[in-house]
Amino acid sequence: MVRSQHAKGDGEQASVRGDDQRLVDLSADLRPLDDEELACLRQVGEHWAAAVGGQDPAAVALLVDPGLHRYPEAAQVDGGGRFAPVDVRTAEATGEVLATEQATEPLTGPGRLLSWARRVVVGHPRDSSAVAHERMRKLVALPVLASDALSSIAYGPEAMLAVLVVAGAGALSLSLPIAAAIAVLMVTVGLSYRQTIRAYRSAGGSYIVAGDNLGVVAGLTAGASLMIDYVMTVAVSIASGLQAITSAVPALRPASVLLGVAAIGLLLAGNLRGVREAGAIFAAPTYAYILALLLLVGVGLIHGAGRGFHASPPPDVSATQAVGLLLVLRAFASGATAMTGIEAISNSVPAFQPEHWRNARATLTWMIALLLTLFAGTVLLVHLDGIVPRSDQTVLSQLAHRHLGGPLYAYVQAATAAVLLLAANTAFNGFPRLLFFMARDGYAPKAFLHMGDRLAFSNGIIALAVVAGVIFVAFGGRTESLIHLYAVSVFLAFTLSQAGMVVHWWRTRAAHWRRSLTVNAAGAVLSALVLLIAAVTKFTAGAWLVIVLLPLIVVTCLRIHRHYQRADDVLRLRPLDREASGQVALPAAPAGARQSPAGEQETEESPEQLRHLVVVLVATLHRPTLRALAYAASLGQPVLAVHLSPDQQEADRFRDYWHAWGDHVRLEIVISPYRAIVAPLARYLQALHQQRPELTLTVVVPETIARHRRHQLLHTNVAARLGRVLRMQPETVISTVPFHLPT
Amino acid sequence: MVRSQHAKGDGEQASVRGDDQRLVDLSADLRPLDDEELACLRQVGEHWAAAVGGQDPAAVALLVDPGLHRYPEAAQVDGGGRFAPVDVRTAEATGEVLATEQATEPLTGPGRLLSWARRVVVGHPRDSSAVAHERMRKLVALPVLASDALSSIAYGPEAMLAVLVVAGAGALSLSLPIAAAIAVLMVTVGLSYRQTIRAYRSAGGSYIVAGDNLGVVAGLTAGASLMIDYVMTVAVSIASGLQAITSAVPALRPASVLLGVAAIGLLLAGNLRGVREAGAIFAAPTYAYILALLLLVGVGLIHGAGRGFHASPPPDVSATQAVGLLLVLRAFASGATAMTGIEAISNSVPAFQPEHWRNARATLTWMIALLLTLFAGTVLLVHLDGIVPRSDQTVLSQLAHRHLGGPLYAYVQAATAAVLLLAANTAFNGFPRLLFFMARDGYAPKAFLHMGDRLAFSNGIIALAVVAGVIFVAFGGRTESLIHLYAVSVFLAFTLSQAGMVVHWWRTRAAHWRRSLTVNAAGAVLSALVLLIAAVTKFTAGAWLVIVLLPLIVVTCLRIHRHYQRADDVLRLRPLDREASGQVALPAAPAGARQSPAGEQETEESPEQLRHLVVVLVATLHRPTLRALAYAASLGQPVLAVHLSPDQQEADRFRDYWHAWGDHVRLEIVISPYRAIVAPLARYLQALHQQRPELTLTVVVPETIARHRRHQLLHTNVAARLGRVLRMQPETVISTVPFHLPT
Repeated sequence: MVRSQHAKGDGEQASVRGDDQRLVDLSADLRPLDDEELACLRQVGEHWAAAVGGQDPAAVALLVDPGLHRYPEAAQVDGGGRFAPVDVRTAEATGEVLATEQATEPLTGPGRLLSWARRVVVGHPRDSSAVAHERMRKLVALPVLASDALSSIAYGPEAMLAVLVVAGAGALSLSLPIAAAIAVLMVTVGLSYRQTIRAYRSAGGSYIVAGDNLGVVAGLTAGASLMIDYVMTVAVSIASGLQAITSAVPALRPASVLLGVAAIGLLLAGNLRGVREAGAIFAAPTYAYILALLLLVGVGLIHGAGRGFHASPPPDVSATQAVGLLLVLRAFASGATAMTGIEAISNSVPAFQPEHWRNARATLTWMIALLLTLFAGTVLLVHLDGIVPRSDQTVLSQLAHRHLGGPLYAYVQAATAAVLLLAANTAFNGFPRLLFFMARDGYAPKAFLHMGDRLAFSNGIIALAVVAGVIFVAFGGRTESLIHLYAVSVFLAFTLSQAGMVVHWWRTRAAHWRRSLTVNAAGAVLSALVLLIAAVTKFTAGAWLVIVLLPLIVVTCLRIHRHYQRADDVLRLRPLDREASGQVALPAAPAGARQSPAGEQETEESPEQLRHLVVVLVATLHRPTLRALAYAASLGQPVLAVHLSPDQQEADRFRDYWHAWGDHVRLEIVISPYRAIVAPLARYLQALHQQRPELTLTVVVPETIARHRRHQLLHTNVAARLGRVLRMQPETVISTVPFHLPT
Repeated sequence: MVRSQHAKGDGEQASVRGDDQRLVDLSADLRPLDDEELACLRQVGEHWAAAVGGQDPAAVALLVDPGLHRYPEAAQVDGGGRFAPVDVRTAEATGEVLATEQATEPLTGPGRLLSWARRVVVGHPRDSSAVAHERMRKLVALPVLASDALSSIAYGPEAMLAVLVVAGAGALSLSLPIAAAIAVLMVTVGLSYRQTIRAYRSAGGSYIVAGDNLGVVAGLTAGASLMIDYVMTVAVSIASGLQAITSAVPALRPASVLLGVAAIGLLLAGNLRGVREAGAIFAAPTYAYILALLLLVGVGLIHGAGRGFHASPPPDVSATQAVGLLLVLRAFASGATAMTGIEAISNSVPAFQPEHWRNARATLTWMIALLLTLFAGTVLLVHLDGIVPRSDQTVLSQLAHRHLGGPLYAYVQAATAAVLLLAANTAFNGFPRLLFFMARDGYAPKAFLHMGDRLAFSNGIIALAVVAGVIFVAFGGRTESLIHLYAVSVFLAFTLSQAGMVVHWWRTRAAHWRRSLTVNAAGAVLSALVLLIAAVTKFTAGAWLVIVLLPLIVVTCLRIHRHYQRADDVLRLRPLDREASGQVALPAAPAGARQSPAGEQETEESPEQLRHLVVVLVATLHRPTLRALAYAASLGQPVLAVHLSPDQQEADRFRDYWHAWGDHVRLEIVISPYRAIVAPLARYLQALHQQRPELTLTVVVPETIARHRRHQLLHTNVAARLGRVLRMQPETVISTVPFHLPT
């Protein structure tokens, strides 16, 4: 049951283990105890039994029936309309209590309103047992996972032409050979990913492939590239989709940033609903788009055939730059963004219906074929028609105007916009899954392990929406600015993934390993070449940002991992040391060693080792205070009351009240002539702790709680502030004793 | 010692009581117990003694020395450099512990950095005993409190001319009679406020005068007007000051909003330093400004005398509107904004050196004289020179260009800008003081009672800066838009204050009451007239906003008051009812009556009435959890452990661990198939509470605390979320048991 923290390349075993371990798994955040820890647990238990004799469970049963067997009506009574009718349903057979859907409802007013809105937008929560059904058929998976790659046709060729046109209209004819090179690249990378899917039958994303075969840093670099890639996919796709809309309806141009943010919000809501329904929403537009482009290319070629395939010369554009190698390479790097999203399918193999990998592979082949057809067709058509990129209209819009017009033009633009807005959805599938894997290996916060109540990784989805939204707004939603940040991360991930596969085949020598190795090597070399070209030619245009960000992300991941490892070392159960287990009496105050709070830890792990001092904060003598004093006294431990006065006069007055009450609890008054409240109290508690560090201080804070949150502002709440200040102090428990106002 | 919640008009006594009660007083937020409460306190104490026999104070003394007498070194030891060397100094003579300045230092890293920055900007904290010295001499009080009124010259006449010029250049000659009317108004209101200062010798702000004599609603209306007035003073003064700057340096115009926000920030910091130092900062610019305007008017009149006081005709401006009564009245209402700030002195009588009221009165007289001179001089000069208001240059700038020029021009503009930026400071004196009085009467949140460690009302100062900043930015920092919101609130406060004085004289019949009543009545009638004119003529231009806001503020104040009253009724000590005091045994579960949490209150006020159930939340079995279990068990109360599982399999595994440990504590497992964490736990605790509402549930939450805050994001903190959800549940104490990571 022991899980290694991260998998390093160790041959065949890696991919085999991958099969059962790399599936998304619900209890990934619940680490099972290993044998050593279990042994420690037993030892601690025996020690506890010897020291305190064990509590009589009947004591609790006498008080309440925790399983609520005998009091089903207690859980059903609806008092003032504020409790849901059925809270907790007892599973009689097992003795466990089962939380129903209602039990996930928030208890507070605003929380409930939010929850209602959430139900409307996101849907009802789903039982964990539904996870097996959240799988996509090929016909659904193609639009969901290929929309990114296919939609790249809308900006890839345009980005290429925009670079070439700088050297004048004549240079545009270079688009054909450059496009041919990109087509070769597409086929190579596509074939290469087919090998990956075969070898990594669960989730063979670049992160895992590179990490398994090239080591941790390579894996994290691939992961970081993919993270940037996903963010850019969202930003670029939405920017480009809005360009398609504003080409048709120029009046909307001023609102495009706002529309983009709204689109990201829509995707966020859609994806929080869960993966299958998201697929259903997105299937239609993608197919509509494929049909639209096929129609456009088809009609365009028929028109071209009518002219005997003679290319119309483009309108004269004055050159501002000579044609040179750098320009051609930059155009190539820009055009290669038409390939973005090709890896999506290999990252999402587990989302397919079984047999996962076969279905994924077939879908990938289909996608590559479609991508090639549409890319080649579009570039050819642009060449034949002599189209020049314009700032107010996309190239696709110009083509559609020329060959279709009228309602068909509107159809092409609408489908393009829809598919681009939805292409961003691919990232919403991939990004949270990537973070899940990284979090499971301890390289990302564990919060990304938690599956939302709709079986979607809500935290990852929300994180992506926020980051992409910020980037989109920061760049004013302009495709041409965003696209320069794009190519580097995409081809870095490609390169690492395929280089990893080369090592994989070399190590495993699995069936057909020679052929696979050759294909992957070709893919890796070509991708590396594009990466180099993109990094050099686009460095000043924005690629530097990505090149700076990548190592930062990798270092952050490594630091997170280091923190988790250290924390695990500290948190895991360990054998009781002889001294503590032998000696049941109170250990002597360990003086010097305990003075530094930095390395200080709570060590007492069985009840007899704890000595208490309960400190009650007393501001004024009203009912909440007396209630807190009663609470503290009733615990049967030594109690000390602490009062803070602004001056001596106030202090004397308060001491008189205390005498009138009867001095039942020892009172200490701290005079705070600087009128600060929290800091002097915290200092006083700190001094108490330093005096006898072996005492556990329970700080009881009375809190007046108003019924409405807006009224809460009218009452000072010291507990929260004190808790924040004292959080670093060891052996200090903060207990808030509430007193509820009826109003 | 009983303080009435608010003072209603009850003749001479009101102003006498005012003398000792209306001073700003440090312990205003510490309400003394009245006799009834003291009796209750004694009764509760006797009952407690009878029921539990009283705790032996020696028990605490054996554990620690709370006064830290014997362990002075304990408080002085500096462990890892994180504790201040001296925390708590014991005042040997009194037995109290005295918090030193170091003890007000925050304990956490970021808090310390913030605190250091604060010390640099705001200064070191001040001992409460320094409050008596924070009084202003007349020569300092004049610039601090009169800068608002005097600086109004910079925008009042200009606003009047801007209205008249709409009817063409010819209409500008109407400025002389209108200005004469305003001058009459100034003298009347000024005399009227002299009466107020004499009668209300401490703080005779409109809020208190109107409240005392006309009733609560009138007082609150005056208070609300003043609040708006102060906010508008800041916004208009800063906008107008920036106009003076951009008249001289047009290049700065695009940055004016940014500069305005920076100026507000500067005022915020200056005022947080405390009132006297603020005065020292502001004295020089105000005197420089008075000198500058006197110089300008003097030179201008000499120039005019050279021409035999013949008025130059203004340049021809085409009229877009005919001269009519409405136009004249609107010009009058706009010009009357030159009077804003006249009331500042009467609101701040306690800030003067003793004899407060005499010094205040003398300062008021000086201020009115200066105001009249400068106003009349400016308007006369504008008329003689035939100046027309322009959008790119202020009227004062035009005058200074014409009569002075060169370095003297720069001096006039700089002094005007400085005094306008600083005039806003008047509001920073008045606003927090107003909120203090309103809070003491229970009409504003009690947070405004708290004096900061520099003896300034920090909360009020910060609130003003934030609101004024928002208004300033929202109106783009344009004086002409802001000024329309100004007049209504100013003259409403004037009217209510002086009407209140009329009632006051009628009731008290103090010395010279007839003359005073007449003066105040004249002031009230004239102010009411201007109020009416302003409300009608500026309604559509923005005054409607003020007219809507005023009742909203008044209603909010009344609601706050109602809440505090109700809360006081509930919170104050009350006699034990016979049943509870007679019966020491556990009261029977009061079934139905306790089912509704809405009106539910914690009633147990002595220890023997409490029955405990300690519930420990157990997520996984690691050291923090075991520590929390040990803490719970060591309290010696019944303990129940609750674990949340996503599915049955996980639940079974956990139960096995629990058996391995030895089942020392009863375990309950809640299965949450929807993967929610906080809500099902909260529901379960709710059901427990409903089952036995007389039990006090202590929910023990283990919390892993990382050393660095950024690492805290890597650990889930359920305690805070659970606390928020369960805050409405009665009898539920949340205890967080920390476990500190060394990393």
